[in-house]
Amino acid sequence: MISTRTRIAAAIAGLAAVTAVAVPAAASSGRLVQTSHLSIAAAQKAASAALDAATKAGQHVSVAVVDRDGNTVVTLRGDGAGPQSYSSAEQKAFTAVSWNAKTSELVGRLQQNPTLKDIDGTLFLAGAVPFAAGSTPIAAVGVAGAPSGAQDESFAQVGVDALGK
Amino acid sequence: MISTRTRIAAAIAGLAAVTAVAVPAAASSGRLVQTSHLSIAAAQKAASAALDAATKAGQHVSVAVVDRDGNTVVTLRGDGAGPQSYSSAEQKAFTAVSWNAKTSELVGRLQQNPTLKDIDGTLFLAGAVPFAAGSTPIAAVGVAGAPSGAQDESFAQVGVDALGK
Amino acid sequence: MISTRTRIAAAIAGLAAVTAVAVPAAASSGRLVQTSHLSIAAAQKAASAALDAATKAGQHVSVAVVDRDGNTVVTLRGDGAGPQSYSSAEQKAFTAVSWNAKTSELVGRLQQNPTLKDIDGTLFLAGAVPFAAGSTPIAAVGVAGAPSGAQDESFAQVGVDALGK
Amino acid sequence: MISTRTRIAAAIAGLAAVTAVAVPAAASSGRLVQTSHLSIAAAQKAASAALDAATKAGQHVSVAVVDRDGNTVVTLRGDGAGPQSYSSAEQKAFTAVSWNAKTSELVGRLQQNPTLKDIDGTLFLAGAVPFAAGSTPIAAVGVAGAPSGAQDESFAQVGVDALGK
Amino acid sequence: MISTRTRIAAAIAGLAAVTAVAVPAAASSGRLVQTSHLSIAAAQKAASAALDAATKAGQHVSVAVVDRDGNTVVTLRGDGAGPQSYSSAEQKAFTAVSWNAKTSELVGRLQQNPTLKDIDGTLFLAGAVPFAAGSTPIAAVGVAGAPSGAQDESFAQVGVDALGK
Amino acid sequence: MISTRTRIAAAIAGLAAVTAVAVPAAASSGRLVQTSHLSIAAAQKAASAALDAATKAGQHVSVAVVDRDGNTVVTLRGDGAGPQSYSSAEQKAFTAVSWNAKTSELVGRLQQNPTLKDIDGTLFLAGAVPFAAGSTPIAAVGVAGAPSGAQDESFAQVGVDALGK
Amino acid sequence: MISTRTRIAAAIAGLAAVTAVAVPAAASSGRLVQTSHLSIAAAQKAASAALDAATKAGQHVSVAVVDRDGNTVVTLRGDGAGPQSYSSAEQKAFTAVSWNAKTSELVGRLQQNPTLKDIDGTLFLAGAVPFAAGSTPIAAVGVAGAPSGAQDESFAQVGVDALGK
Amino acid sequence: MISTRTRIAAAIAGLAAVTAVAVPAAASSGRLVQTSHLSIAAAQKAASAALDAATKAGQHVSVAVVDRDGNTVVTLRGDGAGPQSYSSAEQKAFTAVSWNAKTSELVGRLQQNPTLKDIDGTLFLAGAVPFAAGSTPIAAVGVAGAPSGAQDESFAQVGVDALGK
Repeated sequence: MISTRTRIAAAIAGLAAVTAVAVPAAASSGRLVQTSHLSIAAAQKAASAALDAATKAGQHVSVAVVDRDGNTVVTLRGDGAGPQSYSSAEQKAFTAVSWNAKTSELVGRLQQNPTLKDIDGTLFLAGAVPFAAGSTPIAAVGVAGAPSGAQDESFAQVGVDALGK
Repeated sequence: MISTRTRIAAAIAGLAAVTAVAVPAAASSGRLVQTSHLSIAAAQKAASAALDAATKAGQHVSVAVVDRDGNTVVTLRGDGAGPQSYSSAEQKAFTAVSWNAKTSELVGRLQQNPTLKDIDGTLFLAGAVPFAAGSTPIAAVGVAGAPSGAQDESFAQVGVDALGK
Repeated sequence: MISTRTRIAAAIAGLAAVTAVAVPAAASSGRLVQTSHLSIAAAQKAASAALDAATKAGQHVSVAVVDRDGNTVVTLRGDGAGPQSYSSAEQKAFTAVSWNAKTSELVGRLQQNPTLKDIDGTLFLAGAVPFAAGSTPIAAVGVAGAPSGAQDESFAQVGVDALGK
Repeated sequence: MISTRTRIAAAIAGLAAVTAVAVPAAASSGRLVQTSHLSIAAAQKAASAALDAATKAGQHVSVAVVDRDGNTVVTLRGDGAGPQSYSSAEQKAFTAVSWNAKTSELVGRLQQNPTLKDIDGTLFLAGAVPFAAGSTPIAAVGVAGAPSGAQDESFAQVGVDALGK
Repeated sequence: MISTRTRIAAAIAGLAAVTAVAVPAAASSGRLVQTSHLSIAAAQKAASAALDAATKAGQHVSVAVVDRDGNTVVTLRGDGAGPQSYSSAEQKAFTAVSWNAKTSELVGRLQQNPTLKDIDGTLFLAGAVPFAAGSTPIAAVGVAGAPSGAQDESFAQVGVDALGK
Repeated sequence: MISTRTRIAAAIAGLAAVTAVAVPAAASSGRLVQTSHLSIAAAQKAASAALDAATKAGQHVSVAVVDRDGNTVVTLRGDGAGPQSYSSAEQKAFTAVSWNAKTSELVGRLQQNPTLKDIDGTLFLAGAVPFAAGSTPIAAVGVAGAPSGAQDESFAQVGVDALGK
Repeated sequence: MISTRTRIAAAIAGLAAVTAVAVPAAASSGRLVQTSHLSIAAAQKAASAALDAATKAGQHVSVAVVDRDGNTVVTLRGDGAGPQSYSSAEQKAFTAVSWNAKTSELVGRLQQNPTLKDIDGTLFLAGAVPFAAGSTPIAAVGVAGAPSGAQDESFAQVGVDALGK
Repeated sequence: MISTRTRIAAAIAGLAAVTAVAVPAAASSGRLVQTSHLSIAAAQKAASAALDAATKAGQHVSVAVVDRDGNTVVTLRGDGAGPQSYSSAEQKAFTAVSWNAKTSELVGRLQQNPTLKDIDGTLFLAGAVPFAAGSTPIAAVGVAGAPSGAQDESFAQVGVDALGK
């Protein structure tokens, strides 16, 4: 797991220049760390792209974007999506951003550690893809409602890919 | 999974006629989608039929009807039903309407995807039967309290069958 | 309070034409009622319009769209919005759609019935505006995070207005 | 599973005879106490009568019947009832059966003891009417969704009255 | 507030006389059903006996008595009992009274129906023993905190046995 | 507010003698603090005394004993007590032990600080009496279900008084 | 209210230099926003300072530090603090960071908007002090357990002051 | 399982000397039992040591200390720790103190009793180490967030070891 909060201690010089106006004292005292989040504009873009991909495929899904602090940033309850899909999308995204891995991959880790899935807020089902900046996890897009988790995850991937455009 | 919300875009003409007074602008702009629900009269009929079937069989059960939005529409705590039966009936019905399948069938899907059962609000135990209009899931009847889930499900089936009469 | 579920009994002829393929038996038996929802596309449009209005005003808010069944359809956690704003936006919208009135107006009703605010899921604070089709409540847009509820509600109004365009 | 609720239908005279077989030792040792519940048939009758009264009055409401142990026995989510009405009806009924009084009357008690309303599960809003056997509270019917609590309570009263017929 | 649980101790003979005034119509119309509960005196006796048995065995446990409506009637957090024991004792007792069987036996049923344990409020661990009047389940005593569930259940059995004395 | 955890630093000598076997290193290093709890035997005695007092007065109540760590130690759901009484008794006791004062007195503090009552787990209603050892709060007995809080509190007082005998 | 997420758009040049390895694409696309948090070392320092101040004053309190995303970063349950103090400290801190104001000041806002206090997670009681970097809220220190909120808040202020040293 | 509450009955003489002023009657009547807790100073020391060990190893974790009554005493959300780590650390610590064993060992007990993990508040994942005084469990340190539970537990061990210094 990689930290989203990189201590600025090792890089005071450059960051102080950037944030000098906002948090000058902090930057020089090491009291503050920064976390990166998707802007809401970017998160909406990713969520919409995932939903559109599902719609084109004739699937009815819900979509969620969750940030590295565990907060849900965007939710979309798609037309005709099953009632179970809304919280599923959120929890898949929470799971992916927690371990910075696709939930399809994380399901495999249960073979070694089956009780991982007992952690609050998690759902170990394919359908979510993390978004990282380098090795730093930033957010994840979760999708639920298609007949298979693999399909859900393909839509989530479209959402993440949209962030690179 | 089939959507309960069929965009009216493809059929504006007819629906506009029906709902012209209520939602004329919406119908012409594609802003609205419709979902189908059991009327409360029909839901009561189904629930009562399921409960009666159980009573005739000498079983003490609770019954719930849940709609496609995940809302519980009717609950009946049968005379002598165990305290665990009330929420069980609701969660079975929620599960059946989510995947538009009997819970006895859904239990089988856990072999492929055992973590499906970790989705909030679900209970993968035989006892619930969905009601669909064509391929569109509308609601489900859930029953709990009999010695076996198969029995519970036979009563739920009587409930659903009552909707066709 | 106005119903979103208008029995189709009085208008079988027209609706049957529209939904004949999907729910023929239902239409002819009066078993089904229809509820209107914002399409997810429309709900996103409304939410984005509300958020954009806040951003232009230099305010950091969260936005939610809740439908008449009480389900949250869209959420947007705006950049820099306070942590209390996310659930506030949802609960304001839930409140507005429940009584089909702006929450600024509903606050006034507490003088007569102060315990209305004890109902689960409600928040009697200005900031949400309902959307209706005729007299039928469909959804509401809720906003939270600005210094005053009046400002929040002005952004929510922009969201609802966007639905008419 | 065995029922703990044996209908007394076979009548009063025979009660000693009836329960002699089932709980002979208890009866002679004072280990057991009995609580009276509405039969599910009676509870359904009351709930339906309340809902029908509301429908005739053109109101869209939810109805709940709660027993003296605090358990919900019947719920009916009426066509077009607002999303806040379902839990409101339950909590009003819970409140009425707890103090064996109409909630319209209980609201008045808040003037003396305003924190009564902080008790878990209660809602001090007009709309629920208790049903008692003599001075023994048995159950309550709660209604929510009409424009005023007074109207809700008039429908609940119809439900309770139906029990006397 | 009026009690719904009139001790039958004052004797069977007079009950018809007593309740004739209170619920005559009900009795003749089948509106009411009766459920049997342990008197609080009996429940305390059972709980204390279970706790004493554990103490004599040098074990530190919590004890709970739950009735057939699922309500907890007595809890005892024993000196030195682990923090996990309190809710465990309640949930074991809830489970035993729901199926009218010892939890040690119910654990075995999971082999056929592993998802039974997903029902709300249940805990499928040895340690609880039901109390029935004939074939009618009345309550259960649950114990938790000893090194093995078998030990917990032996203490619960002492509690139930105390009811027969 | 008085601490229940008096650092043993000032009295190592004596305590070390007492607990020398169990926690020798701790006693000499100041790592440990001690909290006093009612023994379960004493807590049962207090709860039973409170319930008996209510029964003698013809009232149907529930009783709870809560310790200074906020854990419930004993609960008794009295015969015929209303369903709201169980959690009320617990929360009253929690409130009394938190501020080491009778809840009848604490209600008065709301005039100065009305939002005190919004603290999780509290209920500011007469009916609970704390038990202290000197100025150190140890536990509280809470009672609920009588027509007035003053009556409830008189029964709770009997419970606390029983601890002195 | 001031945003903690200042878009980096206006300062791409410098930040790109700092985080070039980690988030190069993001920095150049405006997709990411940054939030400032107290380092855990700083948060511990603040919490400890607050607790020490209380201890010196002979008060037994709990302390919490909550960040602008609403996450609790540090909690300290002080020796002898009442059981109500732990969640109180957290909720006070959540409230202060939400509105970037001391809770003693926020209490005053209830006169205009009494329902502000119904927002989830908030507690409008004196005792918490926010920490900001310029006008950007970063975190808050909350204290609970002293006889008055004013005292609690004086300890919280010591905690915040420690961040400036 | 070993009790943390050793009745003082066997050692009245010495303890009475220590606490003579505070609880004289109690000591002589056997009404009170004592539980040992880590002082908050010691708990902070342990938590900080665990966090520092993780930081030195380049891991981003959260840390919690839970006492034998199940109350959380200290939490530290480390810089860059995943959002799932905070509650995981608490629940691991709760689990370890409940059975007075490392969670890595407790995981093994699931082979015999797989439903142990269904007990409320527990998490059977390596990462927590109990602290005992002799055979009396006092508290546990839980750590979560490292790639493996074994690593988490090594940091927790450092925390516990710090208590011995």
